[in-house]
Amino acid sequence: MARIQDVAEKAGVGVATVSRMLNGSGYVSAASRAKIQAAMDELNYTPNELARNLYHKRTGIIAVVVPTIAHPFYAEFVNCAEMEIHRRGFKTMLCNASSGYAEELEYLDMLNRHIVDGVISGTHTMDTEAYNKIKKPIVSLDRYLGEDIPLVAVDHVKGGRLAAQALLQSGCRRVLHFRGETTVEAPYHDRHFEFSRIMRENGVEVYDYELAWNRFDVEYHQQVVDDVFSSGLEFDGVFGVDQLAAICMNELLRRGRRIPEDVKLVGYDGTYISRLSRIPMTTVVQPIDALARESVRLILDCMAGKQAKNERVMLDVSLRQGETTLPV
Amino acid sequence: MARIQDVAEKAGVGVATVSRMLNGSGYVSAASRAKIQAAMDELNYTPNELARNLYHKRTGIIAVVVPTIAHPFYAEFVNCAEMEIHRRGFKTMLCNASSGYAEELEYLDMLNRHIVDGVISGTHTMDTEAYNKIKKPIVSLDRYLGEDIPLVAVDHVKGGRLAAQALLQSGCRRVLHFRGETTVEAPYHDRHFEFSRIMRENGVEVYDYELAWNRFDVEYHQQVVDDVFSSGLEFDGVFGVDQLAAICMNELLRRGRRIPEDVKLVGYDGTYISRLSRIPMTTVVQPIDALARESVRLILDCMAGKQAKNERVMLDVSLRQGETTLPV
Repeated sequence: MARIQDVAEKAGVGVATVSRMLNGSGYVSAASRAKIQAAMDELNYTPNELARNLYHKRTGIIAVVVPTIAHPFYAEFVNCAEMEIHRRGFKTMLCNASSGYAEELEYLDMLNRHIVDGVISGTHTMDTEAYNKIKKPIVSLDRYLGEDIPLVAVDHVKGGRLAAQALLQSGCRRVLHFRGETTVEAPYHDRHFEFSRIMRENGVEVYDYELAWNRFDVEYHQQVVDDVFSSGLEFDGVFGVDQLAAICMNELLRRGRRIPEDVKLVGYDGTYISRLSRIPMTTVVQPIDALARESVRLILDCMAGKQAKNERVMLDVSLRQGETTLPV
Repeated sequence: MARIQDVAEKAGVGVATVSRMLNGSGYVSAASRAKIQAAMDELNYTPNELARNLYHKRTGIIAVVVPTIAHPFYAEFVNCAEMEIHRRGFKTMLCNASSGYAEELEYLDMLNRHIVDGVISGTHTMDTEAYNKIKKPIVSLDRYLGEDIPLVAVDHVKGGRLAAQALLQSGCRRVLHFRGETTVEAPYHDRHFEFSRIMRENGVEVYDYELAWNRFDVEYHQQVVDDVFSSGLEFDGVFGVDQLAAICMNELLRRGRRIPEDVKLVGYDGTYISRLSRIPMTTVVQPIDALARESVRLILDCMAGKQAKNERVMLDVSLRQGETTLPV
């Protein structure tokens, strides 16, 4: 394989000149540029990106850390983020942090070790200290990581309100409410507070079911649904993320309950699960592509040294009416 | 931030000694090791991975290139691959190549540019020349890329047979068969040949619908289904990938057709779509986790210089009986 020395020799210039051109690190005359380019083409020379990155102290790689892309919300988010990162000339390192905190710290450490230039983190860590100690580009997806770390999330208060209204207008009196683990500090809890507040204000009984930390897989959601039904709980409304709501729907139908006549359901996220489910689901739609684009914009700003510390991007949500609630 | 020089000075050894220890590239006495470790701890020194990688001519990163993780089969594959790659001490670069060939070449070029050590490719390129010119570690998922490139796929002949049998035993006489674009050379075509062969042998009419190249999104699949129904085609059986079969199911139900009484459906892949669909789907299950594990095993073998060129791993498939065909 051709080396930089070979290129310099063939072009009749010094190695330092070739290096300046490759790294964009100083003046190279148009004539020399043309000769170097011709020599590189002829020798089929490919610059060693590792060496170049060492010079620039950057890798061109952005890590996207999520609990698991087996969950459709994160699959769609990472898909959109990867496309946007690519469009902006960078590459995506994918990190599933579902097995816990040690893994997450390891990914964070990649910033220190110059493996990645920035991290977009959508994990559900309970310890934010590590995120705050590290003074490198980090953007948070829907999670309070610290004062200095920019955040992208949706308006979950509105999300909770839309879900509550859909179930109230359908006449629900006793609702099952699947909510996230409460020790994680995150914007998404707002939807749960708002949902419960409005329901209780309207005299509706709310059964809160708190989900286990960091579990997003179909198997766990199936366990949760089995648990609910074996408890003998009676309810006429359900609110939870699309995947969980879809599994709940299947179990209700299996038991001969009619939807929406006997039980109403409202999902959250607006993933394709809500469109492919046994009955098209009424759901609160998060703009996943916009969440991804904004996350990428912010991390690139951070990497460019722009002051983005206090940025809190809050995107709008909307209700998509399906057939699991009564028509408004 | 501490530099290697600072560590050497504090430990009372030379920079070369510290470098040998960090790179594992030569003898360092136990006493020196202890002193260096203590100095690194005290100074909170983190080795620059970029520099270390340049030394070792490796990056520790494996690229996984798929059309799009918005499609559940690829989301599950990449999810499993990432976990296995992490377990083996490497990192995953995610590459969606849905926008086409230029993007795919770019990812391949990362091998030349020392950005990644190996590539697992599940794309649907029509040009395999580039893959064969590059003499670097590549493993193919379900695609004929060349003699020298190891391949992981399932037994699609059996997959096609299982689907055909399920529809035959349910009494289908006119089936709609969604098949992949035919110019791509890939093992997965075997299921289509085998399916059509068995159906026609049994006097069943088969309507082949050839899908567009490299399109796996819900929107495209919805278009395809709209196209089929607006053509006025009459059929009593459907065979296609889970996502497409699920969208087809929804359209049939919307039009008041009964499943499985009027129309039978068999999916392919065994993704969670087949379990969350409006009616639990009979589907041919690919062992996605095993496909991922075998792909990772092979790429690591290639990276370690082991002779894996002629490896052709073929994994078993099975039929999961749902409620979209008649019980056997």
